[in-house]
Amino acid sequence: MKNITLLGGTGSIGQQTIDVIKEHPNEFQLYAYAFGSNIEEALPVLELFKPSYIVVKDREIMESLKRKINYDAHIHYGVDALNEIVSLPDVDIVVNAVLGSVGLQPTLEAIRAKKQIAFANKETLVTAGHIVMEEAQRYGVELLPVDSEHAAIHQCLKGENNKDLKRILLTASGGSFRDRTRDELVGVTKQDALKHPNWSMGAKITIDSATMMNKGLEVIEAHWLFGVDYDQIDVILHNESVIHSMVEFVDRNVMAQLGTPDMRIPIQYALAYPDRTDFNLSDSLDLAQIGQLNFKEMSFERFPCLRMAYETGREGGSLPTVLNAANEEAVSLFLNDHITFLDIEDLIERELENHNKIEKPDLETILELDQETRQRVSHTVLKR
Amino acid sequence: MKNITLLGGTGSIGQQTIDVIKEHPNEFQLYAYAFGSNIEEALPVLELFKPSYIVVKDREIMESLKRKINYDAHIHYGVDALNEIVSLPDVDIVVNAVLGSVGLQPTLEAIRAKKQIAFANKETLVTAGHIVMEEAQRYGVELLPVDSEHAAIHQCLKGENNKDLKRILLTASGGSFRDRTRDELVGVTKQDALKHPNWSMGAKITIDSATMMNKGLEVIEAHWLFGVDYDQIDVILHNESVIHSMVEFVDRNVMAQLGTPDMRIPIQYALAYPDRTDFNLSDSLDLAQIGQLNFKEMSFERFPCLRMAYETGREGGSLPTVLNAANEEAVSLFLNDHITFLDIEDLIERELENHNKIEKPDLETILELDQETRQRVSHTVLKR
Repeated sequence: MKNITLLGGTGSIGQQTIDVIKEHPNEFQLYAYAFGSNIEEALPVLELFKPSYIVVKDREIMESLKRKINYDAHIHYGVDALNEIVSLPDVDIVVNAVLGSVGLQPTLEAIRAKKQIAFANKETLVTAGHIVMEEAQRYGVELLPVDSEHAAIHQCLKGENNKDLKRILLTASGGSFRDRTRDELVGVTKQDALKHPNWSMGAKITIDSATMMNKGLEVIEAHWLFGVDYDQIDVILHNESVIHSMVEFVDRNVMAQLGTPDMRIPIQYALAYPDRTDFNLSDSLDLAQIGQLNFKEMSFERFPCLRMAYETGREGGSLPTVLNAANEEAVSLFLNDHITFLDIEDLIERELENHNKIEKPDLETILELDQETRQRVSHTVLKR
Repeated sequence: MKNITLLGGTGSIGQQTIDVIKEHPNEFQLYAYAFGSNIEEALPVLELFKPSYIVVKDREIMESLKRKINYDAHIHYGVDALNEIVSLPDVDIVVNAVLGSVGLQPTLEAIRAKKQIAFANKETLVTAGHIVMEEAQRYGVELLPVDSEHAAIHQCLKGENNKDLKRILLTASGGSFRDRTRDELVGVTKQDALKHPNWSMGAKITIDSATMMNKGLEVIEAHWLFGVDYDQIDVILHNESVIHSMVEFVDRNVMAQLGTPDMRIPIQYALAYPDRTDFNLSDSLDLAQIGQLNFKEMSFERFPCLRMAYETGREGGSLPTVLNAANEEAVSLFLNDHITFLDIEDLIERELENHNKIEKPDLETILELDQETRQRVSHTVLKR
């Protein structure tokens, strides 16, 4: 039985993690549960699993929850409490499914406590990859990716020697607007952008898929997770999202992981690792029924966010922090109807151009820069 | 440096093995070389690598070769000599690329001498899988498949626990006649049958691909190599032969190996195993250029040889020996213009129907049955 601390419990990945735990009552137990403010979503989970520790966003939510909950639990709020529940001695696995760079500090704490980490919080690696991976190496902790692409790569590398890796091939569905030219992106709506062709995911990542920033963040994430140069990471368009990603080895063998578009599969993979366990929440992949898989070359002209991600990844230093913070804020502004879809990439590009790179920023610098960038992007728009 | 004994040196797999050895002079050395009678093909290889041991088919070829060869080597002929060169102390790897069930005894000898075995001789496993695998287990020897499909499965299982395997998915190109109905198979010519859409292979295996018997033999081979039930092995039509085969695990993750249709890749994989080494004889797989991969359900009605292979595999005993021997002889008769394409499956079906199954046949029984079946098939036709 593995005790699980779940951070970001009411988000898309959090809810799907709950599905997986529910299916395997003899293997996984929800031990600690953190969410922001969605009490309505959280309550049935708390009543079902009765986790010993609960952490919420702020005091107000905590008080409100205390009045509604029908069992004895340690209820706290804020980042310090998050840091505590990832490092409790009885915790075996930490699922980090919080959104954005708020996941950074709990990740570092979980690493230092040598927990198995199921990692759905790519922003943390983008913004502070050098710090996170240095700690992971120091403490001998492997980050188990929950992203379907990185879970695919992780499986392709199972039993392999990393020196034999020639290149990583990330597949990209192309997102909601893949069949549109750049001219046809003028005036697209939020509703259109939120219609992902294959995956059911949270709003932020769905917009990131439409701008291709999601793939850009994944490129940076792959760089850190698997220790490969940017020249060794390629992105290919693959409409059907059946091949989740691939690895080519020096001997020209290409390994791929395929599956149905069900995020619970990579979640369960990370929870069960290094074992595998039955998955019965969806059917087997049926390639004969799917019939056809399509592949196309990626275009940096069509998807400038991907180009920006490669450029900032290669340049390194504090640039990826700026990329990520500007993107998070811009997407939030778009989701709140303050800017157009094409404004997202313009805002990011401007932030990157105006930034003076800091080499090897420390944690404090990163957190400050993250805040500053978000504020500047937000003010730029809202003062218009 | 690994010393290699190559059996079947002048055949298609043998020649491609030579290509791989030639490319890696610091890793592989041709130590012993066996071929049938094609001196013309063998001589340049012998002159280049000067293997210490040479084995040919018969005394006549041996004498002829001795007159032509320009260096000192041990030259012998016949099965006993084959058995000797696979078990010489200095040999590290035995590549078994002989055609048909003649590869059985040298395989057993190589196992007993605990050599690394690169195995391209599927007929041996079909005809005597229970004997070969029992010996392999006893001596702790792993057979490394050279077939592209089984090399794919072997890679999908790397670092995995066999208990987590749910099913094997063998891909089939469909062979030369995949776009024809059964009615359209009447009167097809040998020349048509020998035009494989994707792979350049020997004549026998190309005909086996057209009848789908090749896939049937591969199903039986997979059963033995990977210890899986026939219910756990599926075959799917995949025109492009880019995905060479797949494994589905209990957690619904599907792993696949992809590559260009170059047999030298799986050959090198088996030679270099457990390492990987650079391959520069052909380009990287370019999925964007290929553009599309297609999949269709397999039909036993369209391809009765596949149905027969599953049936005989499931029934076991001496039936697979009869299946294989009847097929080898029938294909040979077809290649020599004695029978039509559709006669191949009729001849096999008749042999299977008339056979009284022997449970757990020993080696002697298998070899006798193999001979008897071939002779009966051959006589049935030639006395017509």
